[in-house]
Amino acid sequence: MGERQKLRMGLVGGGPGAFIGPVHRIAAELDGRCALVAGAFSRDAERSREAGAAFGIDHARAYAHFNQMIEAESKRPDGIDFVVIATPNHLHLPIALAALKSGIPVMSDKPATATYEEALELEAAVRSSGLPYGLTHTYAGYAMVREARALFAAKKFGAIRKVAVEYLQGWLSRRLETTGHKQAEWRSDPARSGPGGAIGDIGTHAFHLLEYISGLKVTAINATLRCVVPGRRLDDDCNAFVRMENGVAGTLACSQIAAGELNEMRVRIYGETGSIEWRQQDPNRLIVKWLDGPEEIHHAAASYLGRDALAAARVPAGHPEGYLEAFAVLYREFADALVEWKQGNPQPLPGTLPGIEAGVRGMRFIERVIESNKREGWVDF
Amino acid sequence: MGERQKLRMGLVGGGPGAFIGPVHRIAAELDGRCALVAGAFSRDAERSREAGAAFGIDHARAYAHFNQMIEAESKRPDGIDFVVIATPNHLHLPIALAALKSGIPVMSDKPATATYEEALELEAAVRSSGLPYGLTHTYAGYAMVREARALFAAKKFGAIRKVAVEYLQGWLSRRLETTGHKQAEWRSDPARSGPGGAIGDIGTHAFHLLEYISGLKVTAINATLRCVVPGRRLDDDCNAFVRMENGVAGTLACSQIAAGELNEMRVRIYGETGSIEWRQQDPNRLIVKWLDGPEEIHHAAASYLGRDALAAARVPAGHPEGYLEAFAVLYREFADALVEWKQGNPQPLPGTLPGIEAGVRGMRFIERVIESNKREGWVDF
Amino acid sequence: MGERQKLRMGLVGGGPGAFIGPVHRIAAELDGRCALVAGAFSRDAERSREAGAAFGIDHARAYAHFNQMIEAESKRPDGIDFVVIATPNHLHLPIALAALKSGIPVMSDKPATATYEEALELEAAVRSSGLPYGLTHTYAGYAMVREARALFAAKKFGAIRKVAVEYLQGWLSRRLETTGHKQAEWRSDPARSGPGGAIGDIGTHAFHLLEYISGLKVTAINATLRCVVPGRRLDDDCNAFVRMENGVAGTLACSQIAAGELNEMRVRIYGETGSIEWRQQDPNRLIVKWLDGPEEIHHAAASYLGRDALAAARVPAGHPEGYLEAFAVLYREFADALVEWKQGNPQPLPGTLPGIEAGVRGMRFIERVIESNKREGWVDF
Amino acid sequence: MGERQKLRMGLVGGGPGAFIGPVHRIAAELDGRCALVAGAFSRDAERSREAGAAFGIDHARAYAHFNQMIEAESKRPDGIDFVVIATPNHLHLPIALAALKSGIPVMSDKPATATYEEALELEAAVRSSGLPYGLTHTYAGYAMVREARALFAAKKFGAIRKVAVEYLQGWLSRRLETTGHKQAEWRSDPARSGPGGAIGDIGTHAFHLLEYISGLKVTAINATLRCVVPGRRLDDDCNAFVRMENGVAGTLACSQIAAGELNEMRVRIYGETGSIEWRQQDPNRLIVKWLDGPEEIHHAAASYLGRDALAAARVPAGHPEGYLEAFAVLYREFADALVEWKQGNPQPLPGTLPGIEAGVRGMRFIERVIESNKREGWVDF
Repeated sequence: MGERQKLRMGLVGGGPGAFIGPVHRIAAELDGRCALVAGAFSRDAERSREAGAAFGIDHARAYAHFNQMIEAESKRPDGIDFVVIATPNHLHLPIALAALKSGIPVMSDKPATATYEEALELEAAVRSSGLPYGLTHTYAGYAMVREARALFAAKKFGAIRKVAVEYLQGWLSRRLETTGHKQAEWRSDPARSGPGGAIGDIGTHAFHLLEYISGLKVTAINATLRCVVPGRRLDDDCNAFVRMENGVAGTLACSQIAAGELNEMRVRIYGETGSIEWRQQDPNRLIVKWLDGPEEIHHAAASYLGRDALAAARVPAGHPEGYLEAFAVLYREFADALVEWKQGNPQPLPGTLPGIEAGVRGMRFIERVIESNKREGWVDF
Repeated sequence: MGERQKLRMGLVGGGPGAFIGPVHRIAAELDGRCALVAGAFSRDAERSREAGAAFGIDHARAYAHFNQMIEAESKRPDGIDFVVIATPNHLHLPIALAALKSGIPVMSDKPATATYEEALELEAAVRSSGLPYGLTHTYAGYAMVREARALFAAKKFGAIRKVAVEYLQGWLSRRLETTGHKQAEWRSDPARSGPGGAIGDIGTHAFHLLEYISGLKVTAINATLRCVVPGRRLDDDCNAFVRMENGVAGTLACSQIAAGELNEMRVRIYGETGSIEWRQQDPNRLIVKWLDGPEEIHHAAASYLGRDALAAARVPAGHPEGYLEAFAVLYREFADALVEWKQGNPQPLPGTLPGIEAGVRGMRFIERVIESNKREGWVDF
Repeated sequence: MGERQKLRMGLVGGGPGAFIGPVHRIAAELDGRCALVAGAFSRDAERSREAGAAFGIDHARAYAHFNQMIEAESKRPDGIDFVVIATPNHLHLPIALAALKSGIPVMSDKPATATYEEALELEAAVRSSGLPYGLTHTYAGYAMVREARALFAAKKFGAIRKVAVEYLQGWLSRRLETTGHKQAEWRSDPARSGPGGAIGDIGTHAFHLLEYISGLKVTAINATLRCVVPGRRLDDDCNAFVRMENGVAGTLACSQIAAGELNEMRVRIYGETGSIEWRQQDPNRLIVKWLDGPEEIHHAAASYLGRDALAAARVPAGHPEGYLEAFAVLYREFADALVEWKQGNPQPLPGTLPGIEAGVRGMRFIERVIESNKREGWVDF
Repeated sequence: MGERQKLRMGLVGGGPGAFIGPVHRIAAELDGRCALVAGAFSRDAERSREAGAAFGIDHARAYAHFNQMIEAESKRPDGIDFVVIATPNHLHLPIALAALKSGIPVMSDKPATATYEEALELEAAVRSSGLPYGLTHTYAGYAMVREARALFAAKKFGAIRKVAVEYLQGWLSRRLETTGHKQAEWRSDPARSGPGGAIGDIGTHAFHLLEYISGLKVTAINATLRCVVPGRRLDDDCNAFVRMENGVAGTLACSQIAAGELNEMRVRIYGETGSIEWRQQDPNRLIVKWLDGPEEIHHAAASYLGRDALAAARVPAGHPEGYLEAFAVLYREFADALVEWKQGNPQPLPGTLPGIEAGVRGMRFIERVIESNKREGWVDF
C-alpha cells in the first residue's frame, strides 16, 4: 500500500478578517485528505501574500486574483486538485465558471451564486463540464442530521405530516453594517450578497436542511419579509409557510434580529407516530419523540445509530463534535468522490453531499421568497 | 379578626369522566379561599348526585341542570357566591347568562363561548350586569408568565420586534373521537365545540398568552388551517402569521397532531436588546437572553423577581409549582376581587386576571383565523 | 352512594411566618379527602387564633397548646380524625405521643423526632398503639419517584451496582440565623432542631429517597461533616460514602452552603444494564439511560408508566405537577388508609407511604453520620 | 513576512485500531501549526508502514520502534521538532526519556507515566533537560474550562468552599477486556496501564480539572476503590473525599461501570456568593449560579468572556466546538511555546498548558488513592 496523496486545494477568499476561509482550511485538512497549497486570498496582492504566509503556504502560490491562481496552478505538475470558493456571494459564479472552464472541480460555500439566474447558468456549466461540484451546506455534515435523514428515509414515523424549521440569530439587531463590521457589511449589501439578506445567509441553510432531512421537496411557499433595523437594505427577518410533497405543510423562519439568539437552528419534523427534533447548538443529540412511548435522546457515535451517522463520527460517544467536524465531513466526502472521479467514475458524488442541485434549490428558494413577499401570498416552487 | 369565610362555588360540568371539572375544584380550594358546595355535574340526575358525592358535597345540592342550581341556590341563605363553568363550549353562554341574570358572578373555563357572536352577547351581558366575570386562561396564572409580562411592561428589552408562540400537542394524531374517548369526542364536534378545533381548544391559549405577556394587541392575522387526520370535522393544525401593534410581527402555531409532543406551549418574544422564552412544560424557569450579556434563567419564587411573580409563589424557589397552582392563582385573584366587589368596589378585577375582554378577543381570534384561512390571506382583527 | 365524609385534621404548628404548616393544609385538602378543622398554631393564644382565622376555621378550635387541642377535640362528636405535626423538630415526639395516647392517628413532618433515642421511643408507642402513623417525606409522593422505585423493584436494570444521591441548597451560605430569619433560626439551633443541621433538614430526605427508590438498605456509612459558615452551631455540609445491601456502594451528599443551588435533590442509581436519574427541580421527567440503547425520558402521566406512577397523576402528561401535588399524594394515601383503618383493617398503610420505620431509619441516619464524622471512618448501620 | 513553517511531529502509537493516535494528529494539525511527518505507529514494521501510509507520510519515516524514529529523525535536516506519545501507559516513560535524551521536546498523552516513581524520574529528566514537555489533559483546552478558571482566579465568587467533580462512563459495565476489545484490554491490564484502572484512565482527568479550575491543590484524600465487574484486575469505580488548600472540601468520583453514562465529566465549584458548573458533554456552556441573582449561562466565544476563553475560540458563538478543538488548543499553545523556545525563551510554556507538574500530580493522585483505599481512610497528599 502506497503513501496516500493528499488532495491539493486552492482557496479563493479567506483574507485577513475573513471568518469562513480559515474554516474551510481546517475542515478540508481535518481528516488528512486535503491540503491547502494555494490561494487567492485577497485582491490586494500584499494582503493575499500575508494571508498565504499565515496559512503556511508557498509565497509563489498566494495569488491576487482567482484567474491568476487557476492559470498558474493549471500549469504546475503539482497544481491544485480543486478550488474552494469562500468569497462574498457575488463572486461565486465567476470563480466557479473559471475553475470549471479550466477543468478544475469546485467546492463552494453557499449560496451557490448571487441570484437564481446565475444558479441556472452554473448548473448548466457544471453539468456540461462533468466535473465534481460540492456545496458546503455545513449542517448536512452533522452526524445526527444524517441519522434523522435516515430515520425518515426508513419511514420510522409513518408519513410525514408537519414540519417546522427555524434559524434564528440576533447579531444584526443593531445596524452593524455601518460600523466597519466586515461580515455585516457585505451581507447587507445587495451588490455583494444578492437580493437576499437573512434568507440568503441563513434561510438557505434552513431550507436545505428541511428538504435534506425530510426527503421531500417544497412545492409552494408563502413568505413575509421584514427589514426591521432602520436603514438596512436587505431583509433581516422572515416567516414563511411551506407546502411540501405528499400534502406536508409547515413553517420556515429565519431572523438575524432575534436578540439573544446565537445560532439557533432547529428542525422539527412530525410523522404519524412520532417526530424528531434537532438543534444545531446541541448537535450531538437527536431527540426522538413517540406518540406512544418515552421520548428518546439518540447520542452521536452510539452503537445503535445507522450507518450514515456512524460514518460521520470520529470520536466515541460522549466526546462532542461540532461545527468544524460537520464541515469536515463534507470535505471528506468530497475528497472520496474526487479520488473516485480521478479513477474514472463519472458521477462519484454521494447523495449525502450537497451539490449543484441543492445550490439551484437554494437560489430558487431566495427568489421564490422574495416573489411571495411581493405578492403577499403563495407562490409555487 | 374574624374567621375568614370561604366563598361558595357552584360548578357546572365536571361529571364522571370529566377532566377539567375536578381541576377547577382543586384550583379553587387550593388557597383556602373557596369551597365547592353545589353543582350541576351532569344532566343525568343520578350521575350528578354521584359526582356530588365524590366531591363530598350535600346530596341536595347536586343538581341535574344549571338552571335548577341557580334557582335553588339563589334562595338559600348559604347559597353559592359564584358559578364555575366547566362544560363543553356550546353551554358556556347559556350558563353564564343564566348566572348573570340571577346576579351571580361567573368564573368560566375558556373559550368564553362557542362563537364570536355569542361572545359579544356575553360581553354585553357582563357589562350591563356589573358582575365580576373571570376566565380561566390557566397559563396566565404561572408566576414566570407574570414575570415576563412585567419585564415587557417595564420595557426591559427596548421595543418588541418579533414574537413566536406555539402550542403543540400530539394526542389527536389518531382519530380518537371515534373510539369513545370523551375528551376527543366533544372537542371535534362542531355542535359542542364551536367552529374551532385545535384553534379553539389550545390556539386561544397561545393567542391569549401572546397578548398577555407582550402587552400588545394582534392587529391582523394570516392563518392556514388543516384537518390532517382523515374524517376529522374540525381543524387539528394551524400555522399563522400575526401582525401586532407598533409594527411587531411574528408567528402563532398550534397543533394536536404533532406526534410526540405532550403540551408544548412555548412563547418567545424578542425586543431590541434581548428576549424571553417560556415553556409551559418547564414553567418555573423564565429564560432571558441578552444581545450583549450571558443568558439568564430566572427561577420562580427567587428574591430578584418582580412583585407580580412573587405574589404568585407559594413555596420557596426550587420547589416546583405546576399547572394546578397556576390555575389556583386565578381563583385566588377572583376570590380577592369578589370580596372587594361585595364590599362595594364596582370594578375589582385586577389586570392580571383574564376577564370578558380576553374572552371576546379569544373568540375573535377563532373567527378571524377561520376567515383568513377561507380567504387564504391576511385579515384585519 | 353516600356523601363522602372528609377526614378532619388538627394541625400543630403553622402559625404566622411558618412555611410548612400552610403546605400541609394545601396538601391535605388538595384531593378533597381531608379538611383542616382545628389547630394549635402557636403557643401564643392570640397568634393561634389569628392563624386559625386565616385558615378559615372556627375560633373555638384554634388552640394555644397541642394538649388542649387533643383534649378538646377528643370530646367533640365532630372531633379531629388525625393530628398533623408541623413544628420544629424538638416537639415532634411529645405531640405524637400525646396524640397516640388519646387514640388519634398522626401525620408528621420529618424528621420523626429530634434524636434517634426519641425515634425508638416513638416507634414503640406507634406499634403498641396500633394507630396509623405517616411521615411526610414529600419527595416520595412524586409520580416519577414511584416510577423509578417500580423499575428497580421489577429489576429492569439487573442488579444495582452504584448509587449517588445529593441534596444541595445554598440559602444558608450566609449566617441567616442571626438576622431574624425564622426558618434559619430554629434549623441551626440544636435545642430545637436536634443534633443534625443540614443532615437532619435535607440529608434525611436524600437518605430516605435512596432507600425508597432502590429498595435496598444502607448498611454502613462514612461521613464527613462541616460547619462552613463561621459561628454556625450545626453542620451545613456533608459528604458521605454509603454501603448498601448486595454489595452496592455510592455517595450521599447534602449541603446548605452550595451557593447558587436552590433545592437540587438528584438521585442516580446504576444497575448492570442501565440507570435512572431524577431531579426534584424537574420532577415530571425520569431519565432512563441504557448501556446499549438510546437515553429515554419518561414523562409523568404518560400511558406507558406503571400503576404506581399513574395513580399519583392528576392531570394529563405535559401538565406539570409539583411539590404540593407530591405532598398531597402522601395525604391521599394516608386518608385512604385511615378510612380502611376505621373500617377495621389493622395495618392499612401502603408500602409507598413512609411511616414510622422510615422515621426511625432517618433518625438512625443522623445519629450514624454524626458518629462516623466523630470517628473519621466507617460505622455500621 | 515569511511563510510560516509548520512544526514537524513524530507520533509514537496510533497504529491500526488505535483511538487516541489519530486524535493527536487531527488536534496537532487543526490550527495549521504542526504537521505529522514521522511515526513509530506499531512495533510491527509492516503495520507501522500501513498506519504511516494511511496518515499520508513518507514510507521511510514510518518506524517500527520509537528509538529508531528518534535516532533517524535526529539526523535529518528536516527531522521532527517534537515527539508525541500516544501509547499505553507503560511506554510513556521510556519514550519520553529517549526523546529528552536526544534533545527533542515531548507532547505526551496522560497519565504522564505508569507509576508515581516513574513520574518523579520523568520530572527530573524534564527539568534537567530544559526541554518543553506538554501533557494533553484534553479538557483543559475547552474554552469554558478556561473561563471558569479565570473567574476563580479573579475571585468572582469569594473564597471557594466546596467542590464536586465526577467523571462517569458506563462502557466497562461488561467485561469487555476478554472479548478482544483493544481499548478495554490494555486499560485493565496492570502491566500496561499501571496500578490504576478507572482512576488512571479518567480519574486523573477529573483530578486535574479540579486543581486546574479552582487554582487550589488537593492536600488530602480519602478514597474507596471497587472492582465491580467480576474478574477485572483493576478498579472500575472510585469515590473519594478531598481536602484542598484554604479549608476547601468536597468529592471526586469516577467510574467506568456507570451504565448509561457516556463521558459524563462534570465539575461544580462553590464559592461564598456563587458557583460554576461545567459538563464536558455540553462544553460550550458554562453555568454560573449566584446566591442572589439569576442563574447565568455563559456561551463559548461570546464577547463578554475573558481573554483566555476567547483565545480558545475559533468560530462565532453558537457554533459548537468540541473535543478535537479542545485538544487542538493544547497543541496550539505547545506550538507557540516551541517557537518561543527555539527563539531562546527557556520557559515558554504558559500556565494554561498542563506540563510535567500536572503529570506528577496526576501520578501522585493515583498512588495516593490506592494507598487511601488500602488504609480505608485519609492520606495526605
